[in-house]
Order: sequence, then structure tokens, then C-alpha cells
Amino acid sequence: MSSPLVEVRQLRDRIGQIVTVRGWVRNARTSKTRFIELRDGSGFIQCVAGAEVCDPESYEMAGRLTQECALAATGLVQTHPRSGAPELLVQHLELLGESRDFPITPKEHGIEFLMEKRHLWLRSKRQWAILRIRHAIAKAIRDFFDGEGFTLLDAPILTPSACEGTSTLFATEYFHEGQAFLSQSGQLYQEPGLAAFGKTYCFGPTFRAEKSKTRRHLTEFWMVEPEVAFAHLEDVMVLGERMMKSILERVLETKREELSVLERDLGPLESALSVEYARMTYTDAVARLRELGSDIQWGEDFGNDDETILMNAMDRPLWVHRFPKAFKAFYMEPDPEDDRLALGADLLAPEGYGEVIGGGERASSLDYLLGQISHHGLNRADYEWYLDVRRYGGVPHAGFGLGLERAVAWICKLPHVRETAPYPRMMGTLRP
Amino acid sequence: MSSPLVEVRQLRDRIGQIVTVRGWVRNARTSKTRFIELRDGSGFIQCVAGAEVCDPESYEMAGRLTQECALAATGLVQTHPRSGAPELLVQHLELLGESRDFPITPKEHGIEFLMEKRHLWLRSKRQWAILRIRHAIAKAIRDFFDGEGFTLLDAPILTPSACEGTSTLFATEYFHEGQAFLSQSGQLYQEPGLAAFGKTYCFGPTFRAEKSKTRRHLTEFWMVEPEVAFAHLEDVMVLGERMMKSILERVLETKREELSVLERDLGPLESALSVEYARMTYTDAVARLRELGSDIQWGEDFGNDDETILMNAMDRPLWVHRFPKAFKAFYMEPDPEDDRLALGADLLAPEGYGEVIGGGERASSLDYLLGQISHHGLNRADYEWYLDVRRYGGVPHAGFGLGLERAVAWICKLPHVRETAPYPRMMGTLRP
Repeated sequence: MSSPLVEVRQLRDRIGQIVTVRGWVRNARTSKTRFIELRDGSGFIQCVAGAEVCDPESYEMAGRLTQECALAATGLVQTHPRSGAPELLVQHLELLGESRDFPITPKEHGIEFLMEKRHLWLRSKRQWAILRIRHAIAKAIRDFFDGEGFTLLDAPILTPSACEGTSTLFATEYFHEGQAFLSQSGQLYQEPGLAAFGKTYCFGPTFRAEKSKTRRHLTEFWMVEPEVAFAHLEDVMVLGERMMKSILERVLETKREELSVLERDLGPLESALSVEYARMTYTDAVARLRELGSDIQWGEDFGNDDETILMNAMDRPLWVHRFPKAFKAFYMEPDPEDDRLALGADLLAPEGYGEVIGGGERASSLDYLLGQISHHGLNRADYEWYLDVRRYGGVPHAGFGLGLERAVAWICKLPHVRETAPYPRMMGTLRP
Repeated sequence: MSSPLVEVRQLRDRIGQIVTVRGWVRNARTSKTRFIELRDGSGFIQCVAGAEVCDPESYEMAGRLTQECALAATGLVQTHPRSGAPELLVQHLELLGESRDFPITPKEHGIEFLMEKRHLWLRSKRQWAILRIRHAIAKAIRDFFDGEGFTLLDAPILTPSACEGTSTLFATEYFHEGQAFLSQSGQLYQEPGLAAFGKTYCFGPTFRAEKSKTRRHLTEFWMVEPEVAFAHLEDVMVLGERMMKSILERVLETKREELSVLERDLGPLESALSVEYARMTYTDAVARLRELGSDIQWGEDFGNDDETILMNAMDRPLWVHRFPKAFKAFYMEPDPEDDRLALGADLLAPEGYGEVIGGGERASSLDYLLGQISHHGLNRADYEWYLDVRRYGGVPHAGFGLGLERAVAWICKLPHVRETAPYPRMMGTLRP
């Protein structure tokens, strides 16, 4: 057959033409007319094989297709009379790859089984939709920062010292240098970049060896971390909000089909695109939580449950700012108006999702940082390079980190973060 | 001062206006008129402080500025009479951050010292130019694959088994699962994605614990790995060449200033954008190398020296294809016309740079792969999930990997790959 090869996404422009598509059989129903749902990664197409149009061998083949076999289907592109979607009136089929007993059948499977078969589970319409949205979010993030004049400054994964505590680090032997640790954050590596580039970001995998199984934690996750010279706490909230809106705009513009596969209610996303985000100090948030029934005490960090309670009660994203210094990173700028507090700001997503962004202003005083390093029992020698940022033309600066998988979980409204990555890594999950 | 804050890159549009710029002092020359070279990451601007325009305190300050102190400079944007570039006629200066004895002075420094001070070395004009070009290359790569309808499928870093040999792996304890290894390639994780997405790519850090110090090797480097269903060896060469040209087009279009900082001869880049790349079988390349004086024997892999010799003699990038199976990965499709060979193709960059792309067609036969796994002494159980790609709708497919840092090294014409990453990791280099 010499008809043109086209991708399913292009079929709308081929109505009335004879074309060939190649893909995998998602489903095949056989009666007098045979209906084949074919998928090529760019989209889904119904192929209709009837005895009057299809050649006899192909018609016969269409009656015994197995789930996930690979096919080339040639035929006339027409518009489905009711749905208006393109469909293919099959003239000829060619079997390209056999498939016997595909393990994931249309029946329900347990999550443990699906996670073991993640490499095959990817073929489900739901996983296709989620990971295409993940891609759109990642691209929107990069386009946003590139468009704002940020320079991409990839942070190293292999690092000689701990950035946010030592108990949750993956370690590896590094030649004669002793142990290296997998980075938990690229932030310390962004700050020295400011005097060179003014505005930087990194966007890569980060690691936390947390011995906990929650619906919000992966051990390996992607994080984007912008950092801006001359910026303050307020700038972090403004920048983070603009970035979130740019993500939502992109997803709503380009991923309607995928959102519809997920049956995602678009209302909360459209709202988060148009409204101004709420703001609340940590102190007010604690009071609000206690009204809502939490037993949190001032000075304690939010637990997952607290974030859920707080954000179930909100109709829009919420910035919580000015946290107790005690549970925040050593490098945060203290609040000049209350020295118990640090100038941090976290963005919590609505619909019960909780933290997606954590950030704030970085301490600009060398003396303050030296005190903090000593107070936190850190090894000063490990941080001399980082302290140099303050020694040579130090200026106020601020930034934040957005966890990609948490943004995906909220935007797709997933019950668990394990579906947000192609091959998620959690405690107990290292394969495939 | 209430004049508008602008970035240096925007000054061309502000001629005749009073503005404020903020940045770091790269250099300050003092005579009757004081010349300050200021840098804000978006560009470089000469500030001219003369006694007749500048206020007295600022004029005095301009006479004692130190290297790398941070400044806000307010004044009139005008065009330099000879160069035509914008310059700032200073009315007022404000010191934002002091700097004493910046370690990297205009004199020459040894490479060991510069690597130890990498976080400060980033401020040099040369490193600024290289890393901005790196950013442009990375962005061009993503835009290329996104524009072609590929889906980004991030590969995991923490993997349970070795992909390309076990001697060069970084290992870490992974809870109760035993050892995890830092990924050397995302390719095995792309292949199962094809039946879901048709065309995929990953682009993230990869790791090789190679105990060698060469000008071409980092232990941590970024690699883009596209994979295409229904593609063959020829498609790999066509796709790789189109990607390279799209990178070169972007860099030549948007990074002229940076290339000029590096004094990069544009001829070879412009040529590689316009000519068709050369092609040579491995067998012919060995013969050519022997003519050029190498003692390579048929069946041996190219050494760094061989690639240098071969590519010093070429005026354009070169595809070498059809290599002996013996030294290529177990998953390569055998050549149907010569079963000693595998359908692989590497792209070597000219000017002596050597391999930047490695790729080829993947074996589509389950039986052949089972034989290869056994022949290479691999543990079949580790690969069952990967073999599933062939069990359920297996089709021909192919792909490649491009090492970002090697592309940067060639395009910037750097003598060593250590300058291609913000914080390079090599044997002996884990800090800062």
C-alpha cells in the first residue's frame, strides 16, 4: 500500500483521504462490523472494518485481534456521524507485532500489580493523559523562566554535603573523595549564580530518602528552583503566582483532551488562573487551623493533615508566609519585625492538596549565617563557598522551589503522587 | 532616586533616558573620569563617572570601587561615540554590597584554583558566555522534540540494575530493596513508552563512575535520549542531523554576543548548519584511520585519539555506522547483511571533537535479545520488564543519545569539558 503514513493527531486534516496509521490495539469489538480502537501515542482513532469495504484477509484478521497487538491500518478517513470525531473506514490491515495475554486487562487491577507493571500501565489512557499533562507543565515552567530572562543553571546531583538535614540523604562512594550525597535541592548552587546571571533557575531531579509512605512523597522528584538577585519575600509570592498562572494557562489551552480523559473538573483550575491568591501569615494559619479542629500549636510545622484541612476550606491557592525560624532552613532571612520568624512563603494548592511551592528570602548577612550554621551544628568548612556569596558583592535575593509531581497531582486531581512520574520511586518501589 | 530600574539588556531601548541599573563591578579604571564596567547577568555596560555630571559623593566612591562590589548606578543612557554600544553617564552611585579581595583577579590563575573557586569563576565573562550557550542548546533541544510531537518521559535516576556494564556505576543503599544504581542512560525506560506515546524523549542527568581523567568525560552529565516507534537506522541519522542543525540555528541566531566573547570561529558552525553530514561505515572509518596513522584494528572501538585524528581530517560532522556488535550494547539490532555488525550510528563532531551522538536501531526479536542477555552474562530477571516491549505489540524502533556537555564543548570550541557545566563533576572534583 502506498497511501501516506500519518499520525492520529493529524487525521482531522485528512477527511476524505486514504491514509495509513500505525499503532496498538486498545480494544477490538467484533460483530458483523468490527470496531478497532487504535492508539499511536498522538491520539486515539476508531477503525471500522466492514466486509463490504475491507479486503477479506483483513476483515478476517479484524475478528481475532488481541489487546495491544501492533497494526497498520489503511483506509478512508471520515467523520463519525454522531461524535464528529475522525474515524477510519478500513480497507486493509497489516499485523506489525503480536501480543498474547497482555497482563493489564480492562478489568480492575490492584495498585501493587499496576505499579509492578508500570512499563505496561503507561499504555492506559489515564496514564497517557497524566504524563502528557506533566510534559505540558514542565514545558510551561521552562518557557516561563526563559521568557523572563532567567538563565538555566543546572545544579549538580552529586554533592559533598547535606543541604537540608542528613537523615534523609542517599549516599554513594565518590572515588577518593569519600561520600557524595544525592542533592535534595539545587538552591545553594543557584545563589552564587546570581552575581553572574542575575536571575537563574535549575530544573532537575532531587532526592529525599524519607522513610515514609504518604500520598505526597516520592524519593526522587523533579523540582524547579528559580533564584532572583535584589528580590524580597513579596517578589517570591508575585513570581510564584505568575508562574502558576502561566502553567495553568498552558494546560487549559493545550491539554483539554487529556483533562477530559481524567474527568477533571476545570472550575478550580480556571479559578486559580484568574483570581488573586489568598495570603495568610503562619500565625493566622495556625489560628484558622485550630478553628477548623486541628490541635496544631504555634511553633509546629504543618502536617499533611493540617494542609489538607486548611486547603479543603479554601477556594483558591493560598500563600502562607512568615514561619517560625525554628523549623525552616538555616539560610532564611529573619523577619526584621519579629525575630522568631523567617521570611519564608509556601504556596498551598486548593482542593486539599497542600504545599506545592516553598521559598523565601535568603539571609544576606554573613554574620547571621555564621550564627545559624553554628546553631544548626553544621560544618562551617562545608559552607565557605556558599558564604562567599555574601562576601563578594552580596545583595538581597530570594527564590523558591516548585515540586513538579505535586503540581501534576493537583492539576490532574490525583489521589496519590505515584501516578505523576513515568517511573515513580518510593520507599518499597524501585522497579521497573 | 525614582528613575526606572532596568536590566542592562534593555538599555538599547532607553537611549536618552535617566535609568538605574544594578549589578557587579567587573572592572573600574580611575583617572580624571572614572570608568566602571558593570555586569548584571543580562549583559555588560560601561558607566562613565565624570566630576561635572556625577554628584560629589558618588564621584569620590567611583574612585575607590573594588572588584565585584555590588552597585546601583543612575544616569543618562547614551550611545558610545565609537562602538555604538549604550553607556551610562553616571549621576549617582549607591553601594549595595561590599567586596574585599575577590580571589579571581584579572591576572592568570591555574585551572586547579579556578575549579576550587567555581562558584566565583562563574562570574567571568567567558563562563557567562559558555553557560548561556549551554542554556540555548538545552532549550533548542527541548523545543525541537516538543515541536516534533515527542512526549517528554523523564527516566528515573535510581535504577535497580545496570544498563551498560557494572564497573562504572555509582551505587546507593535503597531502603530494604538493596542497592540502587545511578542511571547511565534512560534508554531502556524510553522503549516501553513508545507503545503509549509513539515518540518519547528524556533529558536529564546521567552518571558514569569512570576512573579516567580525559578532556571528554564528566562523571555527571546531561543527556537527551529520543526514541521513535517504527524507526530504523536511517531515521536515526536523519533525526539526529535535523536536531543538530536546529541547535546550531538557534545558537547562531541568539547567541552571537556569547560566541564573540569566546572568539569562536563561526565558519565550522555555519557549515555544519548548511551541509549534509558525511557518512562512513565503521569498516571504512578503520581503513581511513589506518591511512591517517592510527594502529586501530578492525573490531576495536575508537579511542579518543582515533576520534581526534579522524575528525581533524573532516570539514563537517560525520556519521559512522554499522559497528562490530562485540563492543556495542546488547540491545542493538544486528545488521541483516553482516551478522558481525550492529545497526548503530554515532555522530562525530569536526575540529577534532569526536562523538556527540550515539544511537541506532534496537533489537526487535525477543529470541535474539534473550541470546544477547545470556551472551553478556546479564541477569534475565532484571530485564523481563524490558523484554515485555517485544512481547506485547513489539515493532521496529530506534533512537539515540546526545551528550549535552560534549555538544557545548564543540559548539564553544572548548579545550576541556570541565567548563561546559555550572558545577562539573569529575574524578577528583566533587566541590563546591
